[in-house]
Amino acid sequence: MATKAKIGVLGASGYTGADLVRLLLRHPRAEIVLLTADRSAGKEMREVYPQFSPYELPRLVALDSVDWKAAALDLAFCALPHATTQKVIKDLLAKAPATKVVDLSADFRLHDTSAYAKWYGHEHHAAELQKEAVYGLVEVHRRDIKKARLVANPGCYTTCAQLPLVPLIENKAIDLDEIVIDAKSGMTGAGRAAKESMLFSEVSEGFHAYGVGHHRHMAELDQEFSLAAGRPVTVTFTPHLVPMNRGILSTIYVRGKRGRTPQDLHEVLLKYYAKEPFVHVLPFGETPQTRHIRGSNMTFIGVANDRIEGRAIIISALDNLVKGASGQAMQNMNLVLGYPETMGLEQVALFP
Amino acid sequence: MATKAKIGVLGASGYTGADLVRLLLRHPRAEIVLLTADRSAGKEMREVYPQFSPYELPRLVALDSVDWKAAALDLAFCALPHATTQKVIKDLLAKAPATKVVDLSADFRLHDTSAYAKWYGHEHHAAELQKEAVYGLVEVHRRDIKKARLVANPGCYTTCAQLPLVPLIENKAIDLDEIVIDAKSGMTGAGRAAKESMLFSEVSEGFHAYGVGHHRHMAELDQEFSLAAGRPVTVTFTPHLVPMNRGILSTIYVRGKRGRTPQDLHEVLLKYYAKEPFVHVLPFGETPQTRHIRGSNMTFIGVANDRIEGRAIIISALDNLVKGASGQAMQNMNLVLGYPETMGLEQVALFP
Amino acid sequence: MATKAKIGVLGASGYTGADLVRLLLRHPRAEIVLLTADRSAGKEMREVYPQFSPYELPRLVALDSVDWKAAALDLAFCALPHATTQKVIKDLLAKAPATKVVDLSADFRLHDTSAYAKWYGHEHHAAELQKEAVYGLVEVHRRDIKKARLVANPGCYTTCAQLPLVPLIENKAIDLDEIVIDAKSGMTGAGRAAKESMLFSEVSEGFHAYGVGHHRHMAELDQEFSLAAGRPVTVTFTPHLVPMNRGILSTIYVRGKRGRTPQDLHEVLLKYYAKEPFVHVLPFGETPQTRHIRGSNMTFIGVANDRIEGRAIIISALDNLVKGASGQAMQNMNLVLGYPETMGLEQVALFP
Amino acid sequence: MATKAKIGVLGASGYTGADLVRLLLRHPRAEIVLLTADRSAGKEMREVYPQFSPYELPRLVALDSVDWKAAALDLAFCALPHATTQKVIKDLLAKAPATKVVDLSADFRLHDTSAYAKWYGHEHHAAELQKEAVYGLVEVHRRDIKKARLVANPGCYTTCAQLPLVPLIENKAIDLDEIVIDAKSGMTGAGRAAKESMLFSEVSEGFHAYGVGHHRHMAELDQEFSLAAGRPVTVTFTPHLVPMNRGILSTIYVRGKRGRTPQDLHEVLLKYYAKEPFVHVLPFGETPQTRHIRGSNMTFIGVANDRIEGRAIIISALDNLVKGASGQAMQNMNLVLGYPETMGLEQVALFP
Repeated sequence: MATKAKIGVLGASGYTGADLVRLLLRHPRAEIVLLTADRSAGKEMREVYPQFSPYELPRLVALDSVDWKAAALDLAFCALPHATTQKVIKDLLAKAPATKVVDLSADFRLHDTSAYAKWYGHEHHAAELQKEAVYGLVEVHRRDIKKARLVANPGCYTTCAQLPLVPLIENKAIDLDEIVIDAKSGMTGAGRAAKESMLFSEVSEGFHAYGVGHHRHMAELDQEFSLAAGRPVTVTFTPHLVPMNRGILSTIYVRGKRGRTPQDLHEVLLKYYAKEPFVHVLPFGETPQTRHIRGSNMTFIGVANDRIEGRAIIISALDNLVKGASGQAMQNMNLVLGYPETMGLEQVALFP
Repeated sequence: MATKAKIGVLGASGYTGADLVRLLLRHPRAEIVLLTADRSAGKEMREVYPQFSPYELPRLVALDSVDWKAAALDLAFCALPHATTQKVIKDLLAKAPATKVVDLSADFRLHDTSAYAKWYGHEHHAAELQKEAVYGLVEVHRRDIKKARLVANPGCYTTCAQLPLVPLIENKAIDLDEIVIDAKSGMTGAGRAAKESMLFSEVSEGFHAYGVGHHRHMAELDQEFSLAAGRPVTVTFTPHLVPMNRGILSTIYVRGKRGRTPQDLHEVLLKYYAKEPFVHVLPFGETPQTRHIRGSNMTFIGVANDRIEGRAIIISALDNLVKGASGQAMQNMNLVLGYPETMGLEQVALFP
Repeated sequence: MATKAKIGVLGASGYTGADLVRLLLRHPRAEIVLLTADRSAGKEMREVYPQFSPYELPRLVALDSVDWKAAALDLAFCALPHATTQKVIKDLLAKAPATKVVDLSADFRLHDTSAYAKWYGHEHHAAELQKEAVYGLVEVHRRDIKKARLVANPGCYTTCAQLPLVPLIENKAIDLDEIVIDAKSGMTGAGRAAKESMLFSEVSEGFHAYGVGHHRHMAELDQEFSLAAGRPVTVTFTPHLVPMNRGILSTIYVRGKRGRTPQDLHEVLLKYYAKEPFVHVLPFGETPQTRHIRGSNMTFIGVANDRIEGRAIIISALDNLVKGASGQAMQNMNLVLGYPETMGLEQVALFP
Repeated sequence: MATKAKIGVLGASGYTGADLVRLLLRHPRAEIVLLTADRSAGKEMREVYPQFSPYELPRLVALDSVDWKAAALDLAFCALPHATTQKVIKDLLAKAPATKVVDLSADFRLHDTSAYAKWYGHEHHAAELQKEAVYGLVEVHRRDIKKARLVANPGCYTTCAQLPLVPLIENKAIDLDEIVIDAKSGMTGAGRAAKESMLFSEVSEGFHAYGVGHHRHMAELDQEFSLAAGRPVTVTFTPHLVPMNRGILSTIYVRGKRGRTPQDLHEVLLKYYAKEPFVHVLPFGETPQTRHIRGSNMTFIGVANDRIEGRAIIISALDNLVKGASGQAMQNMNLVLGYPETMGLEQVALFP
């Protein structure tokens, strides 16, 4: 029997933590040996997530109580709040340099220290690591990820926007100054914090935009789109909340460059993703629904004609907790540990 | 005591029919004397909508069985399917020329007979009436509506898009060639027909676009925007379905013309709607949620800066069954019958 | 024009507070002159409930800052948390003895000081008022309410259980030792407090019971059922949470006494509620749905045969925020102030 | 590599069909070689369920076009409507006697031909097979199932009620004449047929009972409870619909016999299910939520004290499409084909 990697999940009481545990329990080469959760330290995982009642899992411990060297983790998933993360990973890697880290926070996604300071309002606490970290959008940066010690797992909104747009930008297929991304997310993207605005009665039976004009995810989009384009790109991006749990759908309005038709854009995407296990480009004119990727690591992308000539409407959909967080994190883990990329990620979407 | 107008609701078993009955039951100058519903003819209204059990209402009858002359309606609301409508209203007005009609279908919204034929694939069956009909967007066409015999009540999507855009177009405040309308609707907009795609398990817990690139509502937008602009205007419009019952939210991307800032656009809207009872412009930077207008005849509009200079994000929200259908129809009824415009429409939104 | 009563809402930022404001804004004889909300003091009502943006309302103030004598309220609705309530009302009535009070908390529902101490774990802080208070289940205690200064508005679960059961118990029509009440409530019954267990993602797409075997509402049921029976009655009661906003449905299992059939029980209820405006007994064999009373002050009751002879299944449904809280409170207000009982409560249910 | 069994799914376009395909795609010893769906014959599975787009599956064919002998299936899952089923299976087993069948309809669940005729209103079309069929509640009838050719997969409501009650009845631990089962189901239990009563707007944001007093599932409960008791048992059972997709929760009211306390009942269940992989008994006093078993084959059972001495409240929860249908069917398949019972059924619940 193949040996199993020793895995820790830091921040196991959040939704991304829970989804990591769900996936890891069924990964044939992973063993969960550490679960941390500060406010719930001392509890069993089943007390914070009763769905794990039938399974044996380590008891939740406080982050401060962990001896990183003794823990000797092969890999740590870090699902902690922004800012805390920087200090924890710096400390962890100092004490256990052989441990690999896949970080699900936004802390290591921006390579540019000044961009970080601008968007987050303070200097980065681990500037060295900020430079070392590899941006973990697998389909774009696979090679670098395989060699990485620290992977910055992309955000959910940005994964959903980058997968359809990066190939088009790289191929100089679309006008860079007229990109509008109208994004809609399920509620788990907002996490498990007890806030009035996230109560059932505040969220169900209604729809609204938020962070209009100034959402932090834009920094990540700016970085990656500019990288793909070879020059600065600024897009319009509006996030909305849908009364559902899982899923992000992005409706993207673009104009083809130099006569590229929507069909041409579709061709670019088909070719780019021909061999990718987790990105599926629908036949031209078909557009995806979030429910058909729920619980799976899939991204579905559709391209259709706008009725205004030369313009296309591109729609992408993924599960924000899987391909948008924990699933992509496991995909990164597989690359970093040298496992087959799809291992433990074969779940078919749960619909209905 | 003031006399009450004799009102008929043709197509009372659909959702807009039910919402008309809900509003009419509380209108002090209206009396429901006729309810038609072909498939449910012979039933009591409480059998198709149990919420009406405590109220006395006429029994549902088949449309064919109605003697329009004898009925002597003061006003008929027509909430019938497309195409059927044309023939019914033609017949009704021929036999009872004194009856006023507010039609909630799309049949009389397009003035141009050739535009109608193009979008609907056949000649109009009542071309004369098509010309006579007044387009019932009250805030824009109030004067004409007061004198009308036949009012074409606007569509829900188009009302939600026109209320924020018509004033900006009329004031030449925005670029006409870059308007993107990303619209999201609750499920009641799709009606009560038993279709697989509208089942609870097909709709809940997910999100998707539909009719991408070719939705019929576009004809109505083209007509009204072009009228406001004095030249042809073609917008990009994508409808989506939200797992909720009532509400439409439109996220609209525009560019200010000749140096107009988003604040300038906000000013235009504030001024235009200063005295309107059913359109409320939020303070600059605030954007609306559908839940806060649920069940009421209100439209909320917000304007915010896009981060790209010169571009604004405008968001409008209304209840598709009220301001988007039955409420606006009653507003039209009030104008046509000479009642105070807000009569029977004072309900405060039901939230939570 | 008739004068308007000066009304205060203490605790206006909760859901019952908001629903009181919704109803009061449309009551022809009420004027909202005071709104309190401690944590939101200084804010406009529109900031905590944007649906009120179009309406003029007094700014929210802190409870401590109110001078009850100067306020000279005709009536105060008290929608404050348990325990706080006792002290506030004691103080209010000491300083403004002419003000009437309708209290929506549980504080004055139990007449027996020892029962109160047992269920709530401490002595009552206003024992005198506890005795004075009249239990505000209008259909049962209407006469006493008309003369009351302090009305204890019943709980939502208990209203839904009492309306079908009290007439049957009073008429000695059912076995008192085999009553099982399986109750299901929407989420607004849990209030607006920011708790993890009430987040959208914890509540949607699932169903569960809570407080199994020991819910506080039982004290209120014990008191009223025992009063109706003339001897102690203890029922089995299990509350559940439904992923919806408004509505309670109680499925009640009873056995007819001395040969009473389910039809006999139906007859008792039909007769008892023949003239009641807000309790509607459905034809025998039909059972209600919560959606058909949403937003209205109606209670629907249905009676059906169990397949076990002699046993009946009774189902009652109401909107927990209206007949279960704010609507019944306004009904009490109308009685106390001598207004027609249905004034301001005529809204038809909002379905769909 | 182990050989794979050749599997057919008859009725693949329904929700149980889709869930079978979801599970079979990940079963290491199963290969889907046949999918039938009459109305969708000729379509690809991805056209009726887009979540299967990335997978290779046989095209849907009409039932009539299948040559059972040539198909040489190792096992057929039959997810067809009631009555059709009898004829299809009779024909299939006549032509391909070596094929095993797991039937998900109600057609073979009743052993008694007269009970069948009484509840379904006509004679059974395959009386011989009705006698041969083994009732597939694995935890109770495992031995017989292993030897069966035709397994009648239990209903979802009845599985949820039997798992907690059969051990208590077998152990003579509860009073047999006072059992009340108040059951609540998600919408997928009603299937994918396009009915008005199942539209999103008819089902969301509300709650109701249906089939009060006369639901067909009772026949199945009567049979199995009477078998366990050794004498006729009739229970009270009321089904309700919850606005959610997956999940059944049963709240069961029982009285302990001969001094058995709720803790005693809990002990009986703990012992009975100690080694079962798919039934998990929670610690005494804890009760389950449907969301924590969503998408998995688990059943969670909790036992708590009623406040009336001697009475207990038992709550069980399962996913109606998995343990209540397709998962249990695969569990039966594993037994019939000699595979490990849990193979392909290891998915952890998807929450949130």
